[in-house]
Amino acid sequence: MKVLVVGANGQIGKHLVSFIQETDGMEAKAMIRKQEQASYFEDLGAETEIVDLEGDIDPIAKAAEGADAVVFTAGSGGHTGKDKTIMVDLDGAVKTIEAAKAANVKRFVMVSSYDTSREAIQEANASFAPYVIAKHYADVWLRNTDLDYTIVHPGLLTNDKGTRNVTAASEVERGEVPREDIARVLLASLQDETTVGKEFQVVGGSTPVADAIKLV
Amino acid sequence: MKVLVVGANGQIGKHLVSFIQETDGMEAKAMIRKQEQASYFEDLGAETEIVDLEGDIDPIAKAAEGADAVVFTAGSGGHTGKDKTIMVDLDGAVKTIEAAKAANVKRFVMVSSYDTSREAIQEANASFAPYVIAKHYADVWLRNTDLDYTIVHPGLLTNDKGTRNVTAASEVERGEVPREDIARVLLASLQDETTVGKEFQVVGGSTPVADAIKLV
Repeated sequence: MKVLVVGANGQIGKHLVSFIQETDGMEAKAMIRKQEQASYFEDLGAETEIVDLEGDIDPIAKAAEGADAVVFTAGSGGHTGKDKTIMVDLDGAVKTIEAAKAANVKRFVMVSSYDTSREAIQEANASFAPYVIAKHYADVWLRNTDLDYTIVHPGLLTNDKGTRNVTAASEVERGEVPREDIARVLLASLQDETTVGKEFQVVGGSTPVADAIKLV
Repeated sequence: MKVLVVGANGQIGKHLVSFIQETDGMEAKAMIRKQEQASYFEDLGAETEIVDLEGDIDPIAKAAEGADAVVFTAGSGGHTGKDKTIMVDLDGAVKTIEAAKAANVKRFVMVSSYDTSREAIQEANASFAPYVIAKHYADVWLRNTDLDYTIVHPGLLTNDKGTRNVTAASEVERGEVPREDIARVLLASLQDETTVGKEFQVVGGSTPVADAIKLV
């Protein structure tokens, strides 16, 4: 299985490419923005594609050609300017979805945020709301496609070392989760067809990742 | 015909409420953000509803109850912070569309921007792109509803006195257009069922508004 990882140079993306490369029968193609980001992925033996997510759909579709799945894990994380929020978290996600369709890649795994519901938008403070709105519409766009999607809604992301154990369900109590474990959830989702058409929240927990996502 | 004007306190909105109030068989309900904005509309004999577009859908739906049409002309115009762009131009528009559906108001007239196509997004400079993206997704959302919509794409808006003459077509050459004339286009669209399901660009021209929009 060949997986295009969009936003590969982010922290989750880097873990994910590394895990994919370690997995028999899987290989990653890292979509990155700049040439100087390539060496990390080349050292892992992964292909790279240099594409600007703020640009046209065509180069993204070209990067997706021949892939069996696309993972979208690019994002501002809510801490960049609000212009980037709408350009990357919303429009970049939608362009990646459209690129997957154009390249006939059916499998699509989206890294969303913890809660992108209408209620979450209305409850968010003014500085966080734009990010929630952007992720909300990206998720809606994906749900309205015919793609075999999985939407992962992580809790508060940390840089702690992963534990390989999480709690996953359509609704879980708010909590922290290491980025490394989210990358494992993405890998496990790609490997488990029962996650197709599903979405779930993930926080730190005590269930091995592969089992936790079966319960969703 | 009773028309809920969302964004009534904007310059186009003020003209529109005034024109509606002058028209036999029509009356406007002005949706505004603050009590101190009400007197202008009360002086015109229009009802007012104080609703925060950044809030929940319910109060907007309540404002729409009993109306025969909703006009969305709220907006940052591209000059406010990018947080407001996504919160008002995108999410405020979508919430207004959902509110119209919830209130069983079928007729919906949207003030969009000149060009909200994918090409326009990609060609926009970094400071304008977020606004185009916001308007793009609002337009897409409206097109995907069962509402009897009309989407008006004005050229470069000016505060010049209106001429009551415009050029309107699915594509017109980029040009200026007075906000007062756009308000007349909105009024004429509400009065002309042939504009249902259509969208058109409008710039200054030499055809009387009511005739110009028949040609689209």
